Amino acid sequence: MDTAYVINTLFTLFAITLIILMVPGFAMLEAGLVRTKNVSSVLTVNVMIYAVASMAFILIGYTLAFGELHNETMSKWAFFMFQMAFVGKAINIMSGGVGERARLLPLSLFTIVMGGFIYPTAVNITWGSDWFKDTLLDINMVDLAGSTVIHSTGGWALLAAILIIGSRKGRYAGNHIRVIPASNIPLVVLGAMLLWIGWFGFNGGSVGSIATKEAANSVALTIFNTNVAGLSGAIIAGIIIYIRYKLFDITMILNGALGGLVAITAGAHLFTLYDSIMVGLIGGALVVFAVPLFDKVRIDDPVGALSVHLINGIWGTLAVGIFASDPAHNVTFMNQLKGVAEIAVFVFTISYVIIYLINKVFPFRASDEDQMQGLDVSECGLEAYPEFKRAI
Amino acid sequence: MDTAYVINTLFTLFAITLIILMVPGFAMLEAGLVRTKNVSSVLTVNVMIYAVASMAFILIGYTLAFGELHNETMSKWAFFMFQMAFVGKAINIMSGGVGERARLLPLSLFTIVMGGFIYPTAVNITWGSDWFKDTLLDINMVDLAGSTVIHSTGGWALLAAILIIGSRKGRYAGNHIRVIPASNIPLVVLGAMLLWIGWFGFNGGSVGSIATKEAANSVALTIFNTNVAGLSGAIIAGIIIYIRYKLFDITMILNGALGGLVAITAGAHLFTLYDSIMVGLIGGALVVFAVPLFDKVRIDDPVGALSVHLINGIWGTLAVGIFASDPAHNVTFMNQLKGVAEIAVFVFTISYVIIYLINKVFPFRASDEDQMQGLDVSECGLEAYPEFKRAI
Amino acid sequence: MDTAYVINTLFTLFAITLIILMVPGFAMLEAGLVRTKNVSSVLTVNVMIYAVASMAFILIGYTLAFGELHNETMSKWAFFMFQMAFVGKAINIMSGGVGERARLLPLSLFTIVMGGFIYPTAVNITWGSDWFKDTLLDINMVDLAGSTVIHSTGGWALLAAILIIGSRKGRYAGNHIRVIPASNIPLVVLGAMLLWIGWFGFNGGSVGSIATKEAANSVALTIFNTNVAGLSGAIIAGIIIYIRYKLFDITMILNGALGGLVAITAGAHLFTLYDSIMVGLIGGALVVFAVPLFDKVRIDDPVGALSVHLINGIWGTLAVGIFASDPAHNVTFMNQLKGVAEIAVFVFTISYVIIYLINKVFPFRASDEDQMQGLDVSECGLEAYPEFKRAI
Repeated sequence: MDTAYVINTLFTLFAITLIILMVPGFAMLEAGLVRTKNVSSVLTVNVMIYAVASMAFILIGYTLAFGELHNETMSKWAFFMFQMAFVGKAINIMSGGVGERARLLPLSLFTIVMGGFIYPTAVNITWGSDWFKDTLLDINMVDLAGSTVIHSTGGWALLAAILIIGSRKGRYAGNHIRVIPASNIPLVVLGAMLLWIGWFGFNGGSVGSIATKEAANSVALTIFNTNVAGLSGAIIAGIIIYIRYKLFDITMILNGALGGLVAITAGAHLFTLYDSIMVGLIGGALVVFAVPLFDKVRIDDPVGALSVHLINGIWGTLAVGIFASDPAHNVTFMNQLKGVAEIAVFVFTISYVIIYLINKVFPFRASDEDQMQGLDVSECGLEAYPEFKRAI
Repeated sequence: MDTAYVINTLFTLFAITLIILMVPGFAMLEAGLVRTKNVSSVLTVNVMIYAVASMAFILIGYTLAFGELHNETMSKWAFFMFQMAFVGKAINIMSGGVGERARLLPLSLFTIVMGGFIYPTAVNITWGSDWFKDTLLDINMVDLAGSTVIHSTGGWALLAAILIIGSRKGRYAGNHIRVIPASNIPLVVLGAMLLWIGWFGFNGGSVGSIATKEAANSVALTIFNTNVAGLSGAIIAGIIIYIRYKLFDITMILNGALGGLVAITAGAHLFTLYDSIMVGLIGGALVVFAVPLFDKVRIDDPVGALSVHLINGIWGTLAVGIFASDPAHNVTFMNQLKGVAEIAVFVFTISYVIIYLINKVFPFRASDEDQMQGLDVSECGLEAYPEFKRAI
Repeated sequence: MDTAYVINTLFTLFAITLIILMVPGFAMLEAGLVRTKNVSSVLTVNVMIYAVASMAFILIGYTLAFGELHNETMSKWAFFMFQMAFVGKAINIMSGGVGERARLLPLSLFTIVMGGFIYPTAVNITWGSDWFKDTLLDINMVDLAGSTVIHSTGGWALLAAILIIGSRKGRYAGNHIRVIPASNIPLVVLGAMLLWIGWFGFNGGSVGSIATKEAANSVALTIFNTNVAGLSGAIIAGIIIYIRYKLFDITMILNGALGGLVAITAGAHLFTLYDSIMVGLIGGALVVFAVPLFDKVRIDDPVGALSVHLINGIWGTLAVGIFASDPAHNVTFMNQLKGVAEIAVFVFTISYVIIYLINKVFPFRASDEDQMQGLDVSECGLEAYPEFKRAI
C-alpha cells in the first residue's frame, strides 16, 4: 500500500474543500459590504470568477504555471484541483475593490486573461522552475501560499483597475468623502469567518505533504501560526479602533483579522508563535491605518481590498526576510524585496495594459444612472432583496 | 495497524460532514428562492426532513437497502452514517418543488415513508444485491452516487406530488404566468455553493475506498470531474442567459451549475476531463431550457427542482452509456436506459399512491388564505424577518 | 514512516476546522435570534470571544490546563490548536445569554479571565492530572468532550452573569412576559446547522486518536451517536410543540437538536444507538420545558442558552452514569454527580466574583436608553441592516 501517496491525496482533498469554501466566503463578505442595490451583481461576479477563472486555469493556465500534469507525492488530480482552487482568489481580490461600478462582461474577459495567463505566469516565476524564472529573473523569494503571488498579485491588478475605472459615482465630492455603510453585517461576519477557515487549507495545503512526522509537524505549525496571525490582527484592530472612537467596529476588526491572515501567508511554516503574533499585530494595524489613507488619495475601494491584500501581501513577504532570515538557505530580506518588486512590476504593468485594452472595447465603468439605480438592475435584472422596503 | 481501515474510516467521516453541509445548503438555497412569507416554513421542512428521514433510515431503511450492518473496509458506523446522509437529499428535492403550498404534517408523514421504504428500495435495486434486484429486475446500471437513485428518485416523487397538490395559488391565471422573484439572493448563492462543496463528499465518498494508489486516484478524479461539471454548467447557463437577455441572472447560473453537478453524479469516476466538460455543458443547458418548459405545461416548481434533478438525473445516467460505454463490463446505453426507466416506474407509481393516500387524510395543500398570508404564519406561527418592512 | 502520528495529526486538523466552523455557527445563531438593533453587537461579541479567549488560552490557559506542550500521538501544534478551539465555546454560551444588554468592554475583560483561568482550571480538574485534581477533589467523572466542562461551565457562568446584570429592559413588566421574536430565521437555521456539524469535530476529535481499528470504530461511533442525539432532540421538540400548539416552531426544534447534542457530549463514545436516542429525546424535551420555566422565574436568556447548555450539560453527564455505568472502571452515577457538583460550585462561585468585580469598575449593563436604541449604535457605531426599513 502506498500509504504516503494516499494520505497526501486525502489531505490535499481536505485542503481543497477548505479553499473552495472561500468562494462563498468572499461572496458573503462582499455582498455584506456593498449597498443593497449592488448585492446581486457582486455575488454574480464572485460565482462567475470561480467558474471562468477555474476553467481558464484548467484548460490553459496550469500548463503555463507548472508544465506537464504529473505528480508523485499524491494523485495528480488532487494536485491539479488544489492549484485550480487558488486562481480565483487573486481575481476575487481585484473584483471586490472595483465593486459597485464595474460591469460584468469586461470583468469576465479580464478573468479569462488573469486566470489563463497573468496569474499562472506569476506562479511560474515564483514557484515554478524554468529558464525565465531561474536565469532571467533569478527570483528566490520564500512565499509559502502566496502573500505575493496571490494577494499582492490581486492587489496590483486592482490598483491598475481602479486607476482606469475610477471611483464610485458620488463617493468623493470636493473635500468630502461620503461614508457608505455596509448593508448586511451578518454576511460580513459569515464571509470573513469562512475565509479564515479556508485559509487553513490554503496555507496548510501549500506545505505540499503531510505524510512524515516532520511534514505533519510542519503542516500543523503552519495552520496554528495562520490562526494566531488572524487572532492577532483582529485583536489589534479592535484595540486601535476602540481607543480612537470608543466603539467596536466589527468590519474593521474583521479586516484586521484578514490582514493578519494575508501577512502570515508567506512564511507561516517558518515562524515561531511570537513571530506569528508580531506579523499579525503589524498586519492588523496596517489595515486600520491604510483604509483612510487610500481614501485620502481618492482610491475608492469599497471592501478595503488594497489595505488587506496588497499592503499585507507586501508586509508578509518582507516579514519572512525579517523574522525567518536564513542567508545560508538564501532567505534574505533583499531576496524577498526583489521578489515583491518583480511581481509588482510584472503584474501591475500587464494588468494595466489588458484592462486598458478591454476597457476600450467593453467599458468597465457602469454609467452614472446605472450606478445610481444599482448594478443589480442593469447587470443582473434582479434585486437581491426585492421584498424588503428600503430606508435609503 | 490496519492502515487501510483507518484511512477509509477517516475519509468517509470527511465525506459525511461535506454531505451534511448540504442540509444548510439546501435550506439556504430554498429559503432564498421562495417569498419572504414562506421562508420559515421552507426552512422547517428542510430541518424536519434531515431529522425524520435520517431516523427512519437508521431504524428501518438501512436494513431494507443493505441488509445486516457490516463492513470490512471501514468502520461500520462510518458506512452507516454515510448512507444515512444520502437519504434526506432525495426528499429535499421533492419538498423544494412543492414549496410555498405544501403543509408540514403530511410532508412529515411522506418523509417517513420515503426515508424508511421508497428510497431504501430504490437503493436496493440499484446498489444492493438480492433476488429481487438481480433476477427479477436485472438492473445493471452504473450510477456512482445517485444521478438516478437520488436525483431522479426525488424528481419522480416531486412530479407525483405536484400532480396531486397543484400549483401555487395565483401562479397561473389564464395565459399569464406570474413571475415570482427570489426573496434573498445571498442565501441562494450561499446555499448553492454549500451544495457544490457537499457534492465532493457525495461523489468522492461513493467511490468507497481511498486506501490504495488506484483508489486515491479514482477519488481525486471523481472530485475533480464533479467540480468541472459544475463549472461547465454555470458557464453555459451564463452564456445562454446573457445571449438571450443581455443580463446575468445569478439564479439561473447557479441552477446551471447544480444541473451539471447532478449530471456528473452517475459517472464522475469514469469520465475524462473533456467528457466532464461535455456532461456539464449539456446539463447546464438542459436546465435553462427546461425551466420555462415546465412552466409552459403548468407544472409549478418554485425552485427549479425538476429541471435540475429529474432532467439531469436522467441525462447524467444516460451519459455514462454514451461517454463511458464499456460493453465488456456491461456498461451500455441500454442498461443505463433500462435502469432509469425501472426506477422511474417504481418511484413515480409508489410515490403517487402514497401521496394520494396521505392527501386523503391530511391534505397537503394549504388553503388559499393560508397561501396568501404565507405558510410561515399558518404552519410555523412565526415570520422569517418580522422586523423588516415589506415592499410587496 | 510514522503513520499513526501522521493520521492522528490529519484527523485532528480536520476536527479543528469543524470546531472553528462553530464560530460562525454561534454567531449566525445568535444574530438570528436577537432583535435587529442588537445584531452587530452580538456578532462583534462572538468574533471578540474567538480572538481574545483563544489568545488568552494560547498565552496562559493551556499551561494551566495541561502543563508543558508535548504530545506523542500527534503533532503538538495540532493538539494545542484543538484545545484552543474549545475555549471560546464556553464563553460563547455565557455571552449569548446576556445578549441585548451586556456591554462589550466588560465582556472582553471577563473573556480574558475565563479563557486564561476559569475554563483552563475546569479542564484541569476534569481532564488533567495533578495533586489538586486527583487528591483534593478526587474527580472521576467521564466527560468525553465537555457536557460539564464546556456546556455546564458556560451555563454556570451565564447564570452568575444574569443574576448580576439583570434582564433586558422591558422584558418583564408586572405579570407580563413580553415575547421578543427572532429577527432572522435563516440565520438561526444556518447557525444551528453549522454548530451541529461542528459537533462532529468536537466529540469525534475528543476520542484523541483514530489510528487503530478500535480507535477508528470509537471515533465513528462517537460521531454517529452525536448525530443520532441531535436528530432525536429535534424530533421530540417538534412533536411536543406540535401537540401543544399545532404549529412547527423552528427555533424550538433547533434548540431541541442542540439540547440533544449537548447531552450526548459526555458519553457519545460509550452509548449504544438506543441509548443515544434516549439521551437525545430527553435532552430535547428538557429544552422545551426549561425555556418557559426560566422565564417564569424571571431569568432572561434571549437565546435559550441555559436550557440548552446548562440543563443538558448536567443531564448528559448524569446520563453516562445511567446508561454506561461501569463500576469496575469507576463509572458510576455518584461519580458523575460529584463531578457535576464540584464544577458547578467552582465555576459559579468564581464567575460570580469576577463578574461582580468587573461590574464595579466597568458596568456590564447598557443603559436603558442604549437598550431601547439598540446596542449596535452605542457599542459598535453601525447598524446591522442600515438600508432595511424597520416595521418594529
